[in-house]
Amino acid sequence: MAALAAMSMCNMTVVDIHTHMYPPSYIDILQSRVSIPLVRTFPQAPEPRLILLQSEAQSLDEAQHDPNAKPPGRPLTSHYTSLDQKIHFMDTHHIDISVISLANPWLDFVDASASGGVAESVNNEFSDMCSRHPNRLFFFGTLPLTAPLDTIKSSITHLKGLRYCRGVILGTSGLGQGLDDPRLLPIFEALADARLTIFLHPHYGLPNDVWGPRSEDYGHVLALALGFPMETTIAVTRMYLAGVFDKVRDLRMILAHSGGTLPFLAGRIESCILHDGQLVREGKVGKDRRSVWDVLKEQVYLDAVIYSDVGLKAAIDASGNDRLLFGTDHPFFPPLESDEQGTWASVSMNADAVNKAVGEGSANAKAIMGGNAVRILRLDQKE
Amino acid sequence: MAALAAMSMCNMTVVDIHTHMYPPSYIDILQSRVSIPLVRTFPQAPEPRLILLQSEAQSLDEAQHDPNAKPPGRPLTSHYTSLDQKIHFMDTHHIDISVISLANPWLDFVDASASGGVAESVNNEFSDMCSRHPNRLFFFGTLPLTAPLDTIKSSITHLKGLRYCRGVILGTSGLGQGLDDPRLLPIFEALADARLTIFLHPHYGLPNDVWGPRSEDYGHVLALALGFPMETTIAVTRMYLAGVFDKVRDLRMILAHSGGTLPFLAGRIESCILHDGQLVREGKVGKDRRSVWDVLKEQVYLDAVIYSDVGLKAAIDASGNDRLLFGTDHPFFPPLESDEQGTWASVSMNADAVNKAVGEGSANAKAIMGGNAVRILRLDQKE
Repeated sequence: MAALAAMSMCNMTVVDIHTHMYPPSYIDILQSRVSIPLVRTFPQAPEPRLILLQSEAQSLDEAQHDPNAKPPGRPLTSHYTSLDQKIHFMDTHHIDISVISLANPWLDFVDASASGGVAESVNNEFSDMCSRHPNRLFFFGTLPLTAPLDTIKSSITHLKGLRYCRGVILGTSGLGQGLDDPRLLPIFEALADARLTIFLHPHYGLPNDVWGPRSEDYGHVLALALGFPMETTIAVTRMYLAGVFDKVRDLRMILAHSGGTLPFLAGRIESCILHDGQLVREGKVGKDRRSVWDVLKEQVYLDAVIYSDVGLKAAIDASGNDRLLFGTDHPFFPPLESDEQGTWASVSMNADAVNKAVGEGSANAKAIMGGNAVRILRLDQKE
Repeated sequence: MAALAAMSMCNMTVVDIHTHMYPPSYIDILQSRVSIPLVRTFPQAPEPRLILLQSEAQSLDEAQHDPNAKPPGRPLTSHYTSLDQKIHFMDTHHIDISVISLANPWLDFVDASASGGVAESVNNEFSDMCSRHPNRLFFFGTLPLTAPLDTIKSSITHLKGLRYCRGVILGTSGLGQGLDDPRLLPIFEALADARLTIFLHPHYGLPNDVWGPRSEDYGHVLALALGFPMETTIAVTRMYLAGVFDKVRDLRMILAHSGGTLPFLAGRIESCILHDGQLVREGKVGKDRRSVWDVLKEQVYLDAVIYSDVGLKAAIDASGNDRLLFGTDHPFFPPLESDEQGTWASVSMNADAVNKAVGEGSANAKAIMGGNAVRILRLDQKE
């Protein structure tokens, strides 16, 4: 963690905008469930297991029938649930401010009748956590997307009134049909009006069969390394093609994992649009069309959770040094062979990438490590 | 085409390594078929239509039942089939040498009993085309992957003896179970022994349902702009995780579309491997492991068909200025609103990206535009 320690010494504010928690009430819900996502205890594991992904269904089934099978999912450590642990993690990594958010899959699976109440309770819990560390914590709220539109709008009004709330974390399913669903437009408008930034985050990945018959040999690598960023890219490209960014010009959206793969593929997307007979015939490719590049520079921000300077430089080239935001993805990707209370390689990989891409101690490094987040999310205003 | 004209004037050899054809015998096969891929004539269109993608099934069905429905697929112009047209296209765009290849989906759909003979005939046709323009054309051959192993090996022996053959074009399905299939190892070994470079090219994309219920509104953009590069990325990551690059150290592979998204995601893939409990437990993450970055710099080449300097710079950062290879993807992505006999925007976008990324007229531009291809594919040897 030498890099982050040095940053801290040179009077830089380090902000982590990609950092998750499952507060106690949410864990209670996961423990009461019988299908994924769920939390369950197995005789073969010392800690309860957190099972989030559909790709874990088979190992869940095996562990339920065979006490010698390896436990499914990941251990539900205090890193997922404890505010003290979050603060300890921040201190260890010289992070000044964290913008915490509920981890996936949020309230996507909650019954319509319950989700409004659950969202209110979860958002109040996040608000309370922030108020206990008023100079160090802000949060992205959670919307009850399975509830009727009025309930969702009430939730936005609630979040707008919460002092430390700066946006909402959003998955890619929207109301169940993706983020290009026109029924979402009033929600995007309400979020833009409330100056709540969307943090777009993947969860569903891609259908299991795209990974092929030997994918079990590869752990979670394919689903997490490829499925997650591809899901984000597909979601935001669908939004772009549906004209959402034009229809809601004040919409602001942070894309997880440096945009999935959007910075790398933006040129190909543009070319495919310009060469698509149907879109040209329908007049969707007009002279006043804002390109994907325009949206990347005007309405989109990218986190810097990309684990290499190669990807980070492409993200900066696409969106701008003033639009990249450092993050850790804590508590996911803990170190496997060292103490979880110490420094995490997954954090230093991303901090090192910033230094390598823009120069340690440079103005751009300071911006990406925290300055941009303070400005974009108004973290210097105690609203 | 000012950029390519200027390149031509400054004594640079321009090589197009990503350029396809459907020779007459292959068109005959497509015309005889009743399911996709196929070629068919419709009363509502002046030219026969080339229908390649499963995502075109619905519009094919509609056009068969409704003479007013828009014709499916794309017009089968002479750009797909005529050697004279290929040479005209090369001249128009100041391309000195083309390494031509059969376009997707190759022989993936041909019966096992027939594919050996079809491969021989198609490869001989490509060989004959090259011999008609001996200073200007080389080719990547086609393997009969549905045939028994011995037939595939015979095909490699045949290709090795063809003077203008420099490799094989390969889809991602392999023998039907992907390129991480251990049954492919003897084929990869035979190709490496024969010094035949693999040109890995997508065709299948991703399952239609990942594009959501409104994807018809977006033409072919999602399937082509996102599905194709994601397919390539998944295929080569599966190969990497299966250890194919370690097992066949002399394997050399050009990845279409600048590696799909591999340069951008390589950091995340590495991080996910290092943090995967299963892979670490199984000892797959050892000290002597070659990383994805190593493979990108030692065994992989990337074409420069990426339509932006942002993506191209990431590809160069990942693999090296000496490993990028200019290409056009002709005859796909023709201009929609200007004469197909003139210059194509899809070509100039990629040439402009090279100039913008490494500087017009620079040594690196010369390398990417042709010098690398001449060296890597031995185009100065008339073997």
